[in-house]
Amino acid sequence: MRLRTLRGGLREGLQLLEIDNGAFRTALLPGRGMGVWKCYHAGETLGWNSPVRGPVHPAYVPVTEPSGLGWLDGFDELLVRCGLSSFGAPDHNAQGQLLWPLHGRIANLPAHWLSVSVDRQTGEIEVIGVVDETRFHFQKLRLTSTLRTLPGEPGVRIHDVVENLSANPAQMQLLYHVNLGQPLLEPGSRVVVPAAEVSPRDTVATTNLAGWETYGPPTPGSTESAYFFQLRGDSNGDTRVLLKNAGGDRGASLGFNLRQMPYFTLWKNTPGEADGYVTGLEPGTGFPNTRTHEEAQHRVVELPPGGRAEFDLSLTSHADAAAVAEAEQAVAELSEPGPLRIHPQPKPGWTVG
Amino acid sequence: MRLRTLRGGLREGLQLLEIDNGAFRTALLPGRGMGVWKCYHAGETLGWNSPVRGPVHPAYVPVTEPSGLGWLDGFDELLVRCGLSSFGAPDHNAQGQLLWPLHGRIANLPAHWLSVSVDRQTGEIEVIGVVDETRFHFQKLRLTSTLRTLPGEPGVRIHDVVENLSANPAQMQLLYHVNLGQPLLEPGSRVVVPAAEVSPRDTVATTNLAGWETYGPPTPGSTESAYFFQLRGDSNGDTRVLLKNAGGDRGASLGFNLRQMPYFTLWKNTPGEADGYVTGLEPGTGFPNTRTHEEAQHRVVELPPGGRAEFDLSLTSHADAAAVAEAEQAVAELSEPGPLRIHPQPKPGWTVG
Amino acid sequence: MRLRTLRGGLREGLQLLEIDNGAFRTALLPGRGMGVWKCYHAGETLGWNSPVRGPVHPAYVPVTEPSGLGWLDGFDELLVRCGLSSFGAPDHNAQGQLLWPLHGRIANLPAHWLSVSVDRQTGEIEVIGVVDETRFHFQKLRLTSTLRTLPGEPGVRIHDVVENLSANPAQMQLLYHVNLGQPLLEPGSRVVVPAAEVSPRDTVATTNLAGWETYGPPTPGSTESAYFFQLRGDSNGDTRVLLKNAGGDRGASLGFNLRQMPYFTLWKNTPGEADGYVTGLEPGTGFPNTRTHEEAQHRVVELPPGGRAEFDLSLTSHADAAAVAEAEQAVAELSEPGPLRIHPQPKPGWTVG
Repeated sequence: MRLRTLRGGLREGLQLLEIDNGAFRTALLPGRGMGVWKCYHAGETLGWNSPVRGPVHPAYVPVTEPSGLGWLDGFDELLVRCGLSSFGAPDHNAQGQLLWPLHGRIANLPAHWLSVSVDRQTGEIEVIGVVDETRFHFQKLRLTSTLRTLPGEPGVRIHDVVENLSANPAQMQLLYHVNLGQPLLEPGSRVVVPAAEVSPRDTVATTNLAGWETYGPPTPGSTESAYFFQLRGDSNGDTRVLLKNAGGDRGASLGFNLRQMPYFTLWKNTPGEADGYVTGLEPGTGFPNTRTHEEAQHRVVELPPGGRAEFDLSLTSHADAAAVAEAEQAVAELSEPGPLRIHPQPKPGWTVG
Repeated sequence: MRLRTLRGGLREGLQLLEIDNGAFRTALLPGRGMGVWKCYHAGETLGWNSPVRGPVHPAYVPVTEPSGLGWLDGFDELLVRCGLSSFGAPDHNAQGQLLWPLHGRIANLPAHWLSVSVDRQTGEIEVIGVVDETRFHFQKLRLTSTLRTLPGEPGVRIHDVVENLSANPAQMQLLYHVNLGQPLLEPGSRVVVPAAEVSPRDTVATTNLAGWETYGPPTPGSTESAYFFQLRGDSNGDTRVLLKNAGGDRGASLGFNLRQMPYFTLWKNTPGEADGYVTGLEPGTGFPNTRTHEEAQHRVVELPPGGRAEFDLSLTSHADAAAVAEAEQAVAELSEPGPLRIHPQPKPGWTVG
Repeated sequence: MRLRTLRGGLREGLQLLEIDNGAFRTALLPGRGMGVWKCYHAGETLGWNSPVRGPVHPAYVPVTEPSGLGWLDGFDELLVRCGLSSFGAPDHNAQGQLLWPLHGRIANLPAHWLSVSVDRQTGEIEVIGVVDETRFHFQKLRLTSTLRTLPGEPGVRIHDVVENLSANPAQMQLLYHVNLGQPLLEPGSRVVVPAAEVSPRDTVATTNLAGWETYGPPTPGSTESAYFFQLRGDSNGDTRVLLKNAGGDRGASLGFNLRQMPYFTLWKNTPGEADGYVTGLEPGTGFPNTRTHEEAQHRVVELPPGGRAEFDLSLTSHADAAAVAEAEQAVAELSEPGPLRIHPQPKPGWTVG
């Protein structure tokens, strides 16, 4: 375990907390909403090469600039939470005034409480961080994020609790924007998801629909595509999505629960390498449309006074062909109950009309 | 006297200056416009429990976000100055573009000069801080704030000078947003003011007008009320307002001068405790409407080139029934000259029409 | 050479790098886009007395506030770069939403890489700083700024490279806003430029056109004037502009190349001293109109994928009458080829219509 304060450029003053379980190392950002900057396993890095040289201190991220796009100035993590009051596309009113900025504020808010402990018996490492997203007269949401990993475990398990501290009802949204680039992402990489339905987000995604499961090479000038999914899970709602490389001997998978996060977005962004060759696996409480649209579609979470919502997410690295095959088999079993419904056009309601 | 740099969360890097006169302790925020975070007297804290876990470094307060409401992200002080170019409600032009953000910038600007000294003869402690609110081509306003307290004095005296450093005329506004919550504020607490006129700010306040002097319990879902006042003062314009607890054995009062600050606002905000159970005693150069409205009503201060305006404010704690009664008597004497005119509806001109 | 971290007020945490070649001292701001705060030569300071008490840490500069004018909160340098995605007047869309803020972002972005070295043979000091202006999905521009000065040299030479790191084409703008005030600027100071054409920017400048080369005293209430120029250069495009004092025994000149920066703006701002008595010598890739206008006029630089543009600027102090006369003679020789065309009204296309 190592806690460092980073110096220089956009990272000045930001803390980096590194946790090593002997096999898997996790670099956490308490100052960026307990995001995960990068992970390291079996000689490779999980993460991506963003054109943004991060990690970026929130003082340099103009989240609420009029365009609502300032969040992009700090975007370079492996795992970044989008929320808690909102996530998704910038949302402006009819006059053009910003209502909700892209992907919300939580990734640019610091933890005010942080603990690291180790279980003497199991050796399990536990990191807890508490981040408040609070505005007087408005939201009083608290994220308590717990990250755990056992000695030798090829990944981490995250348990997040979002509390409405207010005596009034509240709404919340949460999406885990998990971003994977090279070396795992390469031409021929495939995403394996237990999909019941898939719908392209927009016309670009509609055009590219046929190849949604696979990735081409970095392609300068290409445009991002996003696909929205209804996934299948087991009887508890547990599900898994996998990204594997072309050779099928490296992969990373996410485990989560469909009762907690019923919606899944796949983001494919394969421009030139310098522009950020990356794919996003994004389980969430909704789709990353404008918040206004999501609320109209009843895809925001209602929290009563003092209420809470819990979210579990596991990130696992698969470092050889056997481990990848095992993960793929797990997804295949989840997929068995029925065929995949492919919407040839954006499904009404899933996309802003 | 103790000067600390705070660490962690939203307060990272902010300085806290604590002054103790043996009986009364004051926690000052040089990095937030010389605001007073909390005071401590006779075993109790003067201040309130904001849902914002402050004090908050200005780097985390998006004062000028398009909504104009970003100031609320840093709002947790006992005494916060609103101004200097503007205070009051966010002010947008007809296109919806922000003209003046809520309560202005001064509370999120740091002092660039700070001194603490003690008079050898009287033991009086004096803190001076200088904060500039400056934009090239626009305002060049300087706040020089002096806070004084004698050994054993149950409070502090603030003397603020606002200078127009420019060779051009300038306008300014200043309002002291003094916020009191538990334990002083409780069901049955009363505010005692030498009012000549009182007017509800809006329809909510109109509805609640009958009980303007008293406070109920924390009430989830309730909405803030604000009342605007013309107060009476003595022949010098000096006046006093008091908040006392239900039992009448604790209180806090503000002394100020009506020639300096002719307008007084009472803010009552009694939602659930988690949302900030608090009342604001707010002497100012105007009412906290939009700046455009206040200027149209001639309630902004005109400063000639090099001109200055001075403001005196005392904050006194009353820690037993005798002290409270004495303060209440002082207010009663100020109130004597005539009856209170109660406007059953918002007085034209005092409220944005 | 001295590197300090500044403390207190708006400068808290900002680094100041001072380079002294024995005769000429340069104070650099790596945290503000490698700007030059002030220079010192022969007993005098090159720079100006801004009403903004800088240097200002970017955390206190709301560049993207809705007005687009937040840049002015940090404006106090001798040399500040405007760019790289845009410079010039704030640019809003038809709805009033900010598209491009005043003078862009580069001056409020920190270098993430800094080196200082000295050539053992020549003693030349070289400072290199690298600043990225990057937004995911948008610009990926890198400034690599090299500043050099020889022992005893009465100035510095800057060589800037702007790279488009993206695999997509990009556009860029760059303007050097070089600001000179007292003591060099005084009543009777003159600017000497090898102008082929001069055009007033607006009606104020049109009114003041006759006296464009000279300066009056600080005049409270006066309004800034700006003049746009086509300059003459030598066969390589090299040119020079000079500001000299009333007595002709002090001056400062800029050398640059018209192939790199074809446009030159003269900014005259002579209000009361407290408001910033200053003139700006501003070579650039265009004029400081809105970016939308400059693009329509083809005055933005197109960079292919991986492309770069180079910019050279020298700043020289002339500390006696002979040195001033020599610089003036150099400008005169450049001016020889033909008469100066004076546009009595703003030249169409040069000014936003």
